[in-house]
Amino acid sequence: MFDPVLTPCLVLDKDRLQKNTDHFLGLAQQSGILFRPHLKTCKSADVARIGTGGRMNSVTVSTLKEAEYFARVGFSDIMCAAGITPNKFDYVRRISQQHGQNILLITDNIPVARAAVAFAQAENCRLNFLIELDCGEHRGGLAPDSPELLEIARLFQQSGSIQFRGVMTHAGHSYGSDDPERIGEIAEVERKTVVDAARELAQAGITCDIISVGSTPTFLHAKSFEGLTEVRAGVFMFFDLAQYSRNICGFDDIAISVLATVIGHNRPNSSITVDAGAFALSKDFSANTFLPDAGYGYVCDPHTLDRLGALSIDTVHQEHGTIQLDDAAWFERLPIGSLVRILPNHACPTAAAHSHYLVVENGEQVGEWPRVNGW
Amino acid sequence: MFDPVLTPCLVLDKDRLQKNTDHFLGLAQQSGILFRPHLKTCKSADVARIGTGGRMNSVTVSTLKEAEYFARVGFSDIMCAAGITPNKFDYVRRISQQHGQNILLITDNIPVARAAVAFAQAENCRLNFLIELDCGEHRGGLAPDSPELLEIARLFQQSGSIQFRGVMTHAGHSYGSDDPERIGEIAEVERKTVVDAARELAQAGITCDIISVGSTPTFLHAKSFEGLTEVRAGVFMFFDLAQYSRNICGFDDIAISVLATVIGHNRPNSSITVDAGAFALSKDFSANTFLPDAGYGYVCDPHTLDRLGALSIDTVHQEHGTIQLDDAAWFERLPIGSLVRILPNHACPTAAAHSHYLVVENGEQVGEWPRVNGW
Repeated sequence: MFDPVLTPCLVLDKDRLQKNTDHFLGLAQQSGILFRPHLKTCKSADVARIGTGGRMNSVTVSTLKEAEYFARVGFSDIMCAAGITPNKFDYVRRISQQHGQNILLITDNIPVARAAVAFAQAENCRLNFLIELDCGEHRGGLAPDSPELLEIARLFQQSGSIQFRGVMTHAGHSYGSDDPERIGEIAEVERKTVVDAARELAQAGITCDIISVGSTPTFLHAKSFEGLTEVRAGVFMFFDLAQYSRNICGFDDIAISVLATVIGHNRPNSSITVDAGAFALSKDFSANTFLPDAGYGYVCDPHTLDRLGALSIDTVHQEHGTIQLDDAAWFERLPIGSLVRILPNHACPTAAAHSHYLVVENGEQVGEWPRVNGW
Repeated sequence: MFDPVLTPCLVLDKDRLQKNTDHFLGLAQQSGILFRPHLKTCKSADVARIGTGGRMNSVTVSTLKEAEYFARVGFSDIMCAAGITPNKFDYVRRISQQHGQNILLITDNIPVARAAVAFAQAENCRLNFLIELDCGEHRGGLAPDSPELLEIARLFQQSGSIQFRGVMTHAGHSYGSDDPERIGEIAEVERKTVVDAARELAQAGITCDIISVGSTPTFLHAKSFEGLTEVRAGVFMFFDLAQYSRNICGFDDIAISVLATVIGHNRPNSSITVDAGAFALSKDFSANTFLPDAGYGYVCDPHTLDRLGALSIDTVHQEHGTIQLDDAAWFERLPIGSLVRILPNHACPTAAAHSHYLVVENGEQVGEWPRVNGW
């Protein structure tokens, strides 16, 4: 395994991806509602085919570039889960026209709703919209009691050019806890936020055919899915130290890692340097809240993925990661030129630094899968 | 300007790039020694042509992918300033053979030196090496008093296959201070480290034709260049809030920014959300040490680049940046769909998230310049 290979390089353990996906697809089936995997973590058609159980439909993306890429390779029913703005309507229309896929857009405000109606009428095209609600993260979304909910839904429904599809929310603040009880409570607020909104709209005669929630933690610890039509989650395919530290996955579930080479021994400083630094790992530090020794990632055996003692990447520069040693014996165990794998804090930004995955399965390299980064 | 344009997008102000470059090339000329710009920040041939004053030689890179890219487009005398390892020798040889350029490699250890000699002899090729010294950053490099300095240099000199070129160091810890006096002291240690090493080698009959130091802060505040043959610096082309916060540049010198669209107004939370988040800006927070209100970047007028009041990006998610408001009047000044430009903490990781620069000059878009990211 890993010979020859250039480092740093993003490694995907296909066995773990498959296991994580099987588990979550099973949970989704038990929930009785549609599962709409978020592809912002993997940004890869090869991964997404596995992540959707081969279904290739009803997915979530975070950028229009992802929407275009996944539509081009045959995915359908794609929700773009970041608030759209008028300067992007034309790109949405191009994707729809070129690939025959409607993109589900979201908004939380009247100016965009009005502009969408005007655009769709002027260009004689149809746009699909959901209304975003804020269930406590305070990022995007209308407050649950906002009068604009009904106003926007009516505006869409009466337009003739916008297909109003329903309501959605995202409890991203569930990452702030490592307590399953607390996450379960957040999941319940997430659920009630959109169920109540859909009920309010129903009372005004407006039907939501999509009532959507989701984050990996709230999906896992939800007490109920009642009234929902679907749930979204993304990082479950790969997991990472942030999820591990929040009791969302086991250590052996983490499916991506960065392969690195030991490039230096600094004996006076009791440190080892590897060629994976701030760029190959990202500067995300989010696991450290609940895992104070995570540093910029756990240093692991390249074959077994067992952690090497208590080693972490303690300092990063652009192309250097420095491991502070607790024992000089590591200089012998990790000679210059030897390989390590680093489990990342947060799968999404770490993966985003890399153009592709080196895929391994049963201890063998089985392929390279490209990613779609950027905008 | 900026119409039509998709956001988020990396904007390069060519006027500022030219001004920064003119200033530093002038300083380099005054120093009387060679200037070897570091291209790890720009990763762009178009930028590097300006950054080298059209010279297109004697440059520094951080990865072999950059070395290959710059060699392919005609740059020569390229130093790869991260410790090389044997698993990369074959890539080095391919670059040299395909593009006719010798790459200057660095090492700080005997195992790599021995492997390089063996590789060059077995493959009947020549490799060019400098020895890296540690002047206080404790990342890579031999301690100044290390007996291995002479041992490695002798090994190279006697090999017949390795061209030993000299010594180099990097005072990256100069970023830890905002005091010109202190940075000047660090610069002096940086200089003495390699000058002393070269003297030690000279006493043993080994000549260094390259005696190289450099970081943007130490270059700017160095008291002397005596005994050096060259100086390296990279971020000076663009600058950023981290450099501004350390008194290395003026606010109006920062040449890159991220153009973003206002995608949401969260009135109950007194916040505005834009479509540049953790990915488009990076999670680098390094300006905040000396500029506690930097957040993930200053929010600026898209045309003048003046900061908008005291607005910063306070929170980031993958594709969302959230601005906490001090005054509800901002909802009127920054309507949904309006554009802002965000000055980044650290030019290198922010730029690395983007595949290209949108280049503006005299208030007009004048082109798109590609970047070479990854490995």
